[in-house]
Amino acid sequence: SYVIPGLYDLSVEDTNWVLTSSFIIFTMQTGFGMLESGCVSIKNEVNIMMKNVIDIVLGGFTYWLFGYGMSFGRGPFSNPFIAIGDFLLDPPVGDELMGQIFAAFLFQLSFATTSTTIVSGAMAERCNFKAYCLFSFLNTAVYCIPAGWVWGEHGFLNNLGAVDIAGSGPVHLIGGAASFASAAMLGPRLGRYAEGIDPLPLGNPVNACMGLFVLWWGWLAFNSGSTYGVSGAKWQYAARAAVMTMMGSFGGGFVSSLYSFWRHDGRMDIMDLINGILGSLVSITAGCFLYRAWEALIIGALGSLLCVVTMPLFDRMGVDDPVGASSVHGVCGIWGVIAVGLFADNPIPLDTTKGRSGLFKGGGWYLLGIQTLSAFCLACWGICSTIMLLYVINKIIPIRMDPHEELLGADLTEHRIRHSQIGLSRAISALAPI
Amino acid sequence: SYVIPGLYDLSVEDTNWVLTSSFIIFTMQTGFGMLESGCVSIKNEVNIMMKNVIDIVLGGFTYWLFGYGMSFGRGPFSNPFIAIGDFLLDPPVGDELMGQIFAAFLFQLSFATTSTTIVSGAMAERCNFKAYCLFSFLNTAVYCIPAGWVWGEHGFLNNLGAVDIAGSGPVHLIGGAASFASAAMLGPRLGRYAEGIDPLPLGNPVNACMGLFVLWWGWLAFNSGSTYGVSGAKWQYAARAAVMTMMGSFGGGFVSSLYSFWRHDGRMDIMDLINGILGSLVSITAGCFLYRAWEALIIGALGSLLCVVTMPLFDRMGVDDPVGASSVHGVCGIWGVIAVGLFADNPIPLDTTKGRSGLFKGGGWYLLGIQTLSAFCLACWGICSTIMLLYVINKIIPIRMDPHEELLGADLTEHRIRHSQIGLSRAISALAPI
Amino acid sequence: SYVIPGLYDLSVEDTNWVLTSSFIIFTMQTGFGMLESGCVSIKNEVNIMMKNVIDIVLGGFTYWLFGYGMSFGRGPFSNPFIAIGDFLLDPPVGDELMGQIFAAFLFQLSFATTSTTIVSGAMAERCNFKAYCLFSFLNTAVYCIPAGWVWGEHGFLNNLGAVDIAGSGPVHLIGGAASFASAAMLGPRLGRYAEGIDPLPLGNPVNACMGLFVLWWGWLAFNSGSTYGVSGAKWQYAARAAVMTMMGSFGGGFVSSLYSFWRHDGRMDIMDLINGILGSLVSITAGCFLYRAWEALIIGALGSLLCVVTMPLFDRMGVDDPVGASSVHGVCGIWGVIAVGLFADNPIPLDTTKGRSGLFKGGGWYLLGIQTLSAFCLACWGICSTIMLLYVINKIIPIRMDPHEELLGADLTEHRIRHSQIGLSRAISALAPI
Repeated sequence: SYVIPGLYDLSVEDTNWVLTSSFIIFTMQTGFGMLESGCVSIKNEVNIMMKNVIDIVLGGFTYWLFGYGMSFGRGPFSNPFIAIGDFLLDPPVGDELMGQIFAAFLFQLSFATTSTTIVSGAMAERCNFKAYCLFSFLNTAVYCIPAGWVWGEHGFLNNLGAVDIAGSGPVHLIGGAASFASAAMLGPRLGRYAEGIDPLPLGNPVNACMGLFVLWWGWLAFNSGSTYGVSGAKWQYAARAAVMTMMGSFGGGFVSSLYSFWRHDGRMDIMDLINGILGSLVSITAGCFLYRAWEALIIGALGSLLCVVTMPLFDRMGVDDPVGASSVHGVCGIWGVIAVGLFADNPIPLDTTKGRSGLFKGGGWYLLGIQTLSAFCLACWGICSTIMLLYVINKIIPIRMDPHEELLGADLTEHRIRHSQIGLSRAISALAPI
Repeated sequence: SYVIPGLYDLSVEDTNWVLTSSFIIFTMQTGFGMLESGCVSIKNEVNIMMKNVIDIVLGGFTYWLFGYGMSFGRGPFSNPFIAIGDFLLDPPVGDELMGQIFAAFLFQLSFATTSTTIVSGAMAERCNFKAYCLFSFLNTAVYCIPAGWVWGEHGFLNNLGAVDIAGSGPVHLIGGAASFASAAMLGPRLGRYAEGIDPLPLGNPVNACMGLFVLWWGWLAFNSGSTYGVSGAKWQYAARAAVMTMMGSFGGGFVSSLYSFWRHDGRMDIMDLINGILGSLVSITAGCFLYRAWEALIIGALGSLLCVVTMPLFDRMGVDDPVGASSVHGVCGIWGVIAVGLFADNPIPLDTTKGRSGLFKGGGWYLLGIQTLSAFCLACWGICSTIMLLYVINKIIPIRMDPHEELLGADLTEHRIRHSQIGLSRAISALAPI
Repeated sequence: SYVIPGLYDLSVEDTNWVLTSSFIIFTMQTGFGMLESGCVSIKNEVNIMMKNVIDIVLGGFTYWLFGYGMSFGRGPFSNPFIAIGDFLLDPPVGDELMGQIFAAFLFQLSFATTSTTIVSGAMAERCNFKAYCLFSFLNTAVYCIPAGWVWGEHGFLNNLGAVDIAGSGPVHLIGGAASFASAAMLGPRLGRYAEGIDPLPLGNPVNACMGLFVLWWGWLAFNSGSTYGVSGAKWQYAARAAVMTMMGSFGGGFVSSLYSFWRHDGRMDIMDLINGILGSLVSITAGCFLYRAWEALIIGALGSLLCVVTMPLFDRMGVDDPVGASSVHGVCGIWGVIAVGLFADNPIPLDTTKGRSGLFKGGGWYLLGIQTLSAFCLACWGICSTIMLLYVINKIIPIRMDPHEELLGADLTEHRIRHSQIGLSRAISALAPI
């Protein structure tokens, strides 16, 4: 007889939980927008918001067109590498799974738009707007194929036993690896390293802080909602996920603020704290309800440390990532995926880990191995697919802005917005040497 | 025996859904505030926020005083045009419907404050603050009477079979028609059309984008919550409503960004994209869970096109609507109401359409006719009642600001807030010719 | 046999309600951040955001370390003054109360971080950043001990019959009293009263308004979620709490705007309106579902009046509270606690008031007496413990910034952020006389 796939096996209560969580997860787009527009220089603050809007519009549209089907399609040609089917999803009135399918789609859509929006920050201030729109349109595939590996019933990582509750891997590591690749391919902003690797001043630091806040509270629903329901024992783990998410961020904030005090002679750098906390949240995401409180603190603390230490490292490599997405989402994404292999409880009676536990919980090396493999596969895919994608796009529309447009700022050249605060005449006179 | 009215026929689960949705819908006020204060010039950005605050305070207070009773009152004098009763709503402890009544009131309150706040944007930068406060106090009736037509058990449109799930008509079309009327009555801002009909620069474009984001996610709860519960089959349609709302906005964002590229020689105007997306959301609202995915895309796309095309049209007519509320809420509100008559499914087993379907679904002309009639009645009411209201208010307090106050900006003249960025001395010296 | 303590007696539905409410309550941190960074001068706007971030990180971490255990610990040494036990809370997989305990902890955590963040505004613009971090670490105890008095099963005020649903007392009065004490101990900002007691200009008034909005909608979940579930008759009172919260704010906004018009010759001061509304929300919080609609209006109106009248009073006393937290949370907190003794219904069948009613509802003087006692105890504790705490911290790190750092602003001296809008050279030249 017909078996309802796990993705659609939702009770009424589960659906409500999934829908409410999705509504809150979408607010994270506001957070990304605030954070990114606060981090870039004023002459590009509107352009980066427009890129975020386009990300949702084109990313969402393509997710419906082909993305969801690449992750969760149930067609006959689905294989361990890619799902095929359920494109243009549209269950009609009378479909007995209509409610479940739409709830599942909305939830996955909120994840997909989050992942694809991560990259916009890393490409900020020098990526051509039209090339970015094209990138947005196609980037969905970069996320959706590996999301299927981990979460799809067909996925080879899933079937090997990989565990990733809320997406340290598919959402953040993919987003972070793509950030790294795209920042490297675009090259640094003009004059970025003229005076060393110290970060450039933020255009609007208050908005950046506000973005952190909005992301933080959205993350609660992101992780807690990833129990994907409240029936059975799921609600107990939903509560645990929320608390452990906060614990991770406490550990992360604590360590990154100490680090920043130490590094900058008693002055706290705000990007250290912001990205340290975000990095700890990324780190806790994969196993959010599999950890005990102390472990969550440690995982968050280590994650934030990895984040603030690698940010200047990437700059030293000449990879100019204006918002630090490569560290926050990439490095901490790797750590988050691997941490499951070390610390995970077996969340009885849930089947999340298929009965396995992490190395430190007496589960042996298997889970750690498969988690490490996952991290490796996802990082490789994220980097390689982004490079290929941008290579192709670059043939159609050059991905790098014209130097004089970059100096003037995309707000002026793409949206005819003139900022009075920035010395535009100085920018124009600086064009001579180029 | 006593029959519980539909408005109060809520289970515990329904009430939770309605309450949670209401909480999220109220966040749309933050979105409107950000959008409007971002759109006006800097010298009026605080004043427009104050108007939004007053809207909630006075609009909410009057909704309790008389508004709710005009929409849903169950007194003996209720008639097809206006409900009468249930003023000063206050079920005591022991009333067996206490929970349901308060939940219903909160939900309707969140709708009412949304509708009345729409107008503030259209009147921005030149409406006297005290006159606006008086307007806020009385404007509630402008919304509540036609809301009763469509949603009240007494309402003539409701009894004719008009369908409007989340308020393209009562909330948006009324708000948009009132916007058009009030913008026309106030006349354009001083110097608005001195250099043609091109929009004036936004005071804070990043905040305007942020406002779009906050409204977008709030809209999910607005439309999804409008199943008014999750019991029975309602939850399935709640999920469908949320997905179709997103689909509509994808269609709208896609088309309005293409349009903007084409119109402005490859430069994207941010108000085109912001208002295009908002217009598509307005368009999908009336039938949010009655459409299939492709239809939602098309309805959103057409709505956004109507919006971006009519914005300069109104300017050409000399109707100066600083935020474009007439197009976003008015024009798209009409389209949203009529689209139900074309595309609506009969959402078995719900009674939403009373068993009817739209023209393209084989339901014949009846639903289209009644939807067109609804749009016509609501547009006429919105325009006429607003004109009458402002005419009366203008006799008490002149609705238009003094020219020199308008030049100085309401932040300075009404709230003693001095902005350093704006050339106030220039504004003062410009006073001579007036 | 074992009896589940009330704190953990949660059904699945209750837990969902508590979790969803918590998610929304955390968004109030965004509101506090916006409000406070909008109120201070531009040279300190980032520093105050950093203090808010640190508040959550250290406040949350210490809440887990020792705070929760001081409020709700169930150890053998718990006594009417302080609970002891349940430190480092961490129920393992298999604990049959795991879900309930984590849900309770998250909910209480959202309350604790709200209370401790209130003080940051009162100490703004002159408190040394490192001293503040230390304060943040220890401040948790200031809140947690009296929270236990009112809400813990061991608490003496609880056992005497004190009623405080959502924390006018423990959250707001404690926060407000601590604000008053810390503002007094720090002394006024340099030059604050050089030109009288008129408030200094806000650095970003639009953000301050936005903060009001975010707090307002968060407050709905704060008060409504404080039914602590929806099972039994709780959901009915959850709906009532939300409506009465809005009613209170309508009364408050109405009265404070009238007062502000009158006081400032027809010009509305935005801090009057913002703080008036916040004060009314604080006032309604303790008895949010115990009042009838008219009473809620009156309680909110009186609260807002008390707030706007005492703000200049504190300035006249030389207590410089940049955001008015002493009035909003302190004065209105007292009024909110006492109002329960006057107006409270007995919310049959809930046990909230232990069967008692307020004076005006025929309940006699007992409840009023105990509420007055509560207000007195909480105010004394808030003031005394904060003074002691700051006295000790001052011995370790001077709590007051250096005068030249204060003039330059903490954004520059603590975070190396240079604001172009502010005349820094003027500030530096002003250093000579000091």
